[in-house]
Amino acid sequence: MGQLDAHRIRENLRELSREPHLASSPRDEDLVQLLLQRWKDPESGLDSAEAFTYEVLLSFPSQEQPNVVDIVGPTGDIIHSCHRTEENVTGEQGGPDVIQPYAAYAPSGNPQGLLVYANHGTEDDFKELQTQGIKLEGTIALTRYGGVGRGDKAVNAAKHGVAGVLVYTDPADINDGLSSPSETFPNSWYLPPSGVERGSYYKYFGDPLTPYLPAIPSSFRLDLANISGFPPIPTQPIGFQDARDLLCNLNGTSAPTTWQGALGCHYRLGPGFRPDGNFSADSQVNVSVYNRLELRNSSNVLGIIRGAVEPDRYVLYGNHRDSWVHGAVDPSSGTAVLLELSRVLGTLLKKGTWRPRRSIVFASWGAEEFGLIGSTEFTEEFFNKLQERTVAYINVDIAVFANATLRVQGTPPVQSVVFSATKEIRSPGPGDLSIYDNWIRYFNRSSPVYGLVPSLGSLGAGSDYAPFIHFLGISSMDIAYTYDRSKTSARIYPTYHTAFDTFDYVDKFLDPGFSSHQAVARTAGSIILRLSDSFFLPLKVSDYSETLRSFLQAAQQDLGALLEQHSISLGPLVTAVEKFEAEAAALGQRISMLQKGSPDPLQVRMLNDQLMLLERSFLNPRAFPEERYYSHVLWAARTGSVATFPGLSNACSRANDTASGSEAWAEVQRQLSIVVTALEGAAATLRPVADL
Amino acid sequence: MGQLDAHRIRENLRELSREPHLASSPRDEDLVQLLLQRWKDPESGLDSAEAFTYEVLLSFPSQEQPNVVDIVGPTGDIIHSCHRTEENVTGEQGGPDVIQPYAAYAPSGNPQGLLVYANHGTEDDFKELQTQGIKLEGTIALTRYGGVGRGDKAVNAAKHGVAGVLVYTDPADINDGLSSPSETFPNSWYLPPSGVERGSYYKYFGDPLTPYLPAIPSSFRLDLANISGFPPIPTQPIGFQDARDLLCNLNGTSAPTTWQGALGCHYRLGPGFRPDGNFSADSQVNVSVYNRLELRNSSNVLGIIRGAVEPDRYVLYGNHRDSWVHGAVDPSSGTAVLLELSRVLGTLLKKGTWRPRRSIVFASWGAEEFGLIGSTEFTEEFFNKLQERTVAYINVDIAVFANATLRVQGTPPVQSVVFSATKEIRSPGPGDLSIYDNWIRYFNRSSPVYGLVPSLGSLGAGSDYAPFIHFLGISSMDIAYTYDRSKTSARIYPTYHTAFDTFDYVDKFLDPGFSSHQAVARTAGSIILRLSDSFFLPLKVSDYSETLRSFLQAAQQDLGALLEQHSISLGPLVTAVEKFEAEAAALGQRISMLQKGSPDPLQVRMLNDQLMLLERSFLNPRAFPEERYYSHVLWAARTGSVATFPGLSNACSRANDTASGSEAWAEVQRQLSIVVTALEGAAATLRPVADL
Repeated sequence: MGQLDAHRIRENLRELSREPHLASSPRDEDLVQLLLQRWKDPESGLDSAEAFTYEVLLSFPSQEQPNVVDIVGPTGDIIHSCHRTEENVTGEQGGPDVIQPYAAYAPSGNPQGLLVYANHGTEDDFKELQTQGIKLEGTIALTRYGGVGRGDKAVNAAKHGVAGVLVYTDPADINDGLSSPSETFPNSWYLPPSGVERGSYYKYFGDPLTPYLPAIPSSFRLDLANISGFPPIPTQPIGFQDARDLLCNLNGTSAPTTWQGALGCHYRLGPGFRPDGNFSADSQVNVSVYNRLELRNSSNVLGIIRGAVEPDRYVLYGNHRDSWVHGAVDPSSGTAVLLELSRVLGTLLKKGTWRPRRSIVFASWGAEEFGLIGSTEFTEEFFNKLQERTVAYINVDIAVFANATLRVQGTPPVQSVVFSATKEIRSPGPGDLSIYDNWIRYFNRSSPVYGLVPSLGSLGAGSDYAPFIHFLGISSMDIAYTYDRSKTSARIYPTYHTAFDTFDYVDKFLDPGFSSHQAVARTAGSIILRLSDSFFLPLKVSDYSETLRSFLQAAQQDLGALLEQHSISLGPLVTAVEKFEAEAAALGQRISMLQKGSPDPLQVRMLNDQLMLLERSFLNPRAFPEERYYSHVLWAARTGSVATFPGLSNACSRANDTASGSEAWAEVQRQLSIVVTALEGAAATLRPVADL
Repeated sequence: MGQLDAHRIRENLRELSREPHLASSPRDEDLVQLLLQRWKDPESGLDSAEAFTYEVLLSFPSQEQPNVVDIVGPTGDIIHSCHRTEENVTGEQGGPDVIQPYAAYAPSGNPQGLLVYANHGTEDDFKELQTQGIKLEGTIALTRYGGVGRGDKAVNAAKHGVAGVLVYTDPADINDGLSSPSETFPNSWYLPPSGVERGSYYKYFGDPLTPYLPAIPSSFRLDLANISGFPPIPTQPIGFQDARDLLCNLNGTSAPTTWQGALGCHYRLGPGFRPDGNFSADSQVNVSVYNRLELRNSSNVLGIIRGAVEPDRYVLYGNHRDSWVHGAVDPSSGTAVLLELSRVLGTLLKKGTWRPRRSIVFASWGAEEFGLIGSTEFTEEFFNKLQERTVAYINVDIAVFANATLRVQGTPPVQSVVFSATKEIRSPGPGDLSIYDNWIRYFNRSSPVYGLVPSLGSLGAGSDYAPFIHFLGISSMDIAYTYDRSKTSARIYPTYHTAFDTFDYVDKFLDPGFSSHQAVARTAGSIILRLSDSFFLPLKVSDYSETLRSFLQAAQQDLGALLEQHSISLGPLVTAVEKFEAEAAALGQRISMLQKGSPDPLQVRMLNDQLMLLERSFLNPRAFPEERYYSHVLWAARTGSVATFPGLSNACSRANDTASGSEAWAEVQRQLSIVVTALEGAAATLRPVADL
């Protein structure tokens, strides 16, 4: 791991981010070739590498008819237009391959209406506007990023009759309140006034036309009319300089305090503009969207190091390749690390001095930005093979958000291997701390078992790990270096998904010297080696017990009384959790005993299979039929407020207002049984294998 | 296998069938204890044995109010009553534990109406009656067993407004036309005139209240109102002596030739009775059903022999324990074999001279007769563990239908192990043939690969293998000795599900000397040993190629032109089948090469995992959402007429009358993609494990 070179990562990043490489663009295809070339290099390549191409439905703005946002005066003349492109601040924003800001998968159309301000565009936000007596029918809603997913803003808006949606990034949310050009990039890491966050507004993930089927050319494709999950109304993102022109001229009552931002004026709700502002009071906003859906080829690149002893056990490491513009941070920081890791391991391999016990698979996914498409299609195409053989999936998307600390999201069994790895690697920056010791200063929790430890976050669906954990039930993790939250409140690094996410941005502001990149590479590399080369798999299944216990306690404390009122007992869940705890502990003891002797490889393989496959036992493809790909009964999306098993939490929050005996309460009971069955089944997989 | 003793099987059968042992009855519980005692015997028992109890919804006739079928005269008085019980011919039919004939899960009610004759009660049969101008509304339909499933008769009848259904067994279908007492049991193996086939009329399998969840006490149970799959109208089975009274007095036009039977009269359609018959012309039939649904405890008994080297690989062997009455044939012939097999292997085990490489699990399932309930609940409770570790499931339900020949149903990979086993065991009966050589005389086919070979049947859902193959995707087989079809046309052995299925029936008519029972025991035993003790698993995955090729050819020949008209190409299916063939052949070659050397155990384990898990790659839980438990895309129930991939066949037959671009044609394309994805995925699992 000492050979992982910060300078080489920097050079990788320079090359990867030299040009915009939007999914399926010519430059994206060039990078496919670059990856293949690197992974087939006779000196530093892997055993084999191949590109797998899918034909997927992407969404692009029209090149002939740009999307526009105009203010239209009472006589129908355009009195103001928002910017169509970001300002060419560094000479990189003006290139022909910089795609105009847009909301991918938003439908085309040109609604026009009075402007209202709708905060984050949550369901509650629109209800608040209604409560304020504002007629939403036919309006254009200006919303700011945050609070809910991109697509949800349009979905919520449409429910209230809103005709079009604008989305901007408030300087309060991204720039710690700063907004002037002198305070923003290239003078700081903050977002320039013209910066616009692009993004996918699709509700699900995977190719929209081929749910559950790989998007190979012959696959059945839905009729466009049958696709669900696209935003229902035209939607367009804008920069905060344009948002200021709109929002600071609004009429109407004051927006609530929590809705105020940092545009330098008092935010009002509308509808329409104030008479003493820049636009006449009866001016309307016109949002013209000309996005087009196109079937495009997008490739994953896979490279493999064949395991010496157990080639049928895969340690998967991946990141996406496609960006919105230059994507120096997102995703090229991760790809730069990926290439350096594969170079170091490939070099060892080609020298003939090393080959891991298990196979290592490197992946460069396509079209992640449109909804994790490449990785999802891969899991659909090779479902059984991957589910049967994959030890763990490691995702490094944005490798470095900032250079303060490591941040890991993952399922409990990976905690121990991450801890072991990070304790042995020096943290970048001043002092002589390990990555672990630095990490624990920023993210920590008190574990009943271990005392104070770094806290792992849980996996949502923010990057390519989603199909692996939710659809396949493979133990997964996502690794990055990130912020000191005491120093910034930015939602995410400020130039996220804009044309300002460039090499110089990283080199000057995010990680000068690339030591955080190197720290991520070393961490990931150490984890890969431990997972692929240890005799016993370093997955500690008993670490699931803490999670289950905390879910159980939350259910007891926050739902127990309510459930009792409806004659639903948590007793079977208590029993199931206890059984899991006991079996996981006993398995741990059997492994410890074996480690003291010299167990035969077949014995270890059997135990390792129990460790590897535990995560699968939490899958139930029938648990959440309406939630595409979400089969993991512990990590499915939780909408209910109680931090417990998601199916239980969500069902309770839906049943809460209904009478005993309702369908909603039956669903609570069903969800409880699904969890109990999964936990009992999981415990059964951990028992000695010849026990009944 | 030489120690498998016909005499001991006979004694087992005598004990097992001594009393009726309906699911959840006290005698059924006694047999649970008997099994536990045998499997825990210090001299001949297994490593461990345990009963697993579920609380399941069964259906029984009322003890206070027997179900009755009466002919009611125009003044409302009962002028004739059908028998409520079978005739006490051998002294065994009159016992208190002999349950009255009934249609399990048929609803209670007492409809009364004119009688019609509806042949098998298929959809076409009722259409024929309609065509004949017969008003079905409010009638009672007399149907005969055969043609469609039990429950379907009531479902089809109800669609036409029929108010109640009677079902009888025609002597033409069961007795080779014979019907007099002197020609039937106890004077021959044929069904006595009073014999009535009981049975489950439930459409699905598994506990009706807990689909996809194990029926443990805490599990969520459906509200009775939400259960689907029960017959919609009162239904009652009757014997052919009663059917004769009804049918031979019917009025109306002649029934079609194919509807005629062997009751000794010309069958007419009704409605109502003829004026010159035994009943006045305006008499009606009253069907009074008082069945009750009850939650009952039903147990599986599991016994295990721990594998010496790979204890986490399970060879599962099972049969159900519950019967309708004494059940000497169904299921006790199989249980008698099971007990003898476990005794012989247990004795070797306890002597310390033998332990198989892999674990052997023996299972005695509960409540099979009500719908494969015990085995289904078992697969729901231990889904992941079983799916990850089970090498194969061997089912021996009715061991001996008759003593002419072996009959095996199974998935292609088990063919070779069945052939190997049967070639080395002598066939009972005259001559010096192997079981294989005898078998090939009765069931054979011309294989493109092997030439003339015995033909295996495919697995439907007739016994406990169904959840293993359809829900879990485990290679399965069902083994029995059966008829010489040139000597009888009986649908099944004549006393099936009646109170005449007794020990003496088996001992005198079905298998005097028990040599066929012994042949089944030897065959099954040899298969168990080969699967549990071979270094390389004797599952030949390349034998799937013949099936796929024949499905493909049927699709090309019988659907190709139609599909082409609707612009659907079979090209991707051709490619997928070819890929499968190539990968399966290549894997076979790699195994042959390895077998010549001395491969290390881990290498063999990896290959064995490929062989074991191939069947799983044909599962898709989203392929047939409306077909409960059916996830296997090759063996799901086929309703379409073309003998090809069931999803494709069924979708084509539904789309046939619709226009291009219809939803039905989209479903054809979806089904085609599902099969292609499964075959491509299967081929991927067979490739060298470190190939991409």
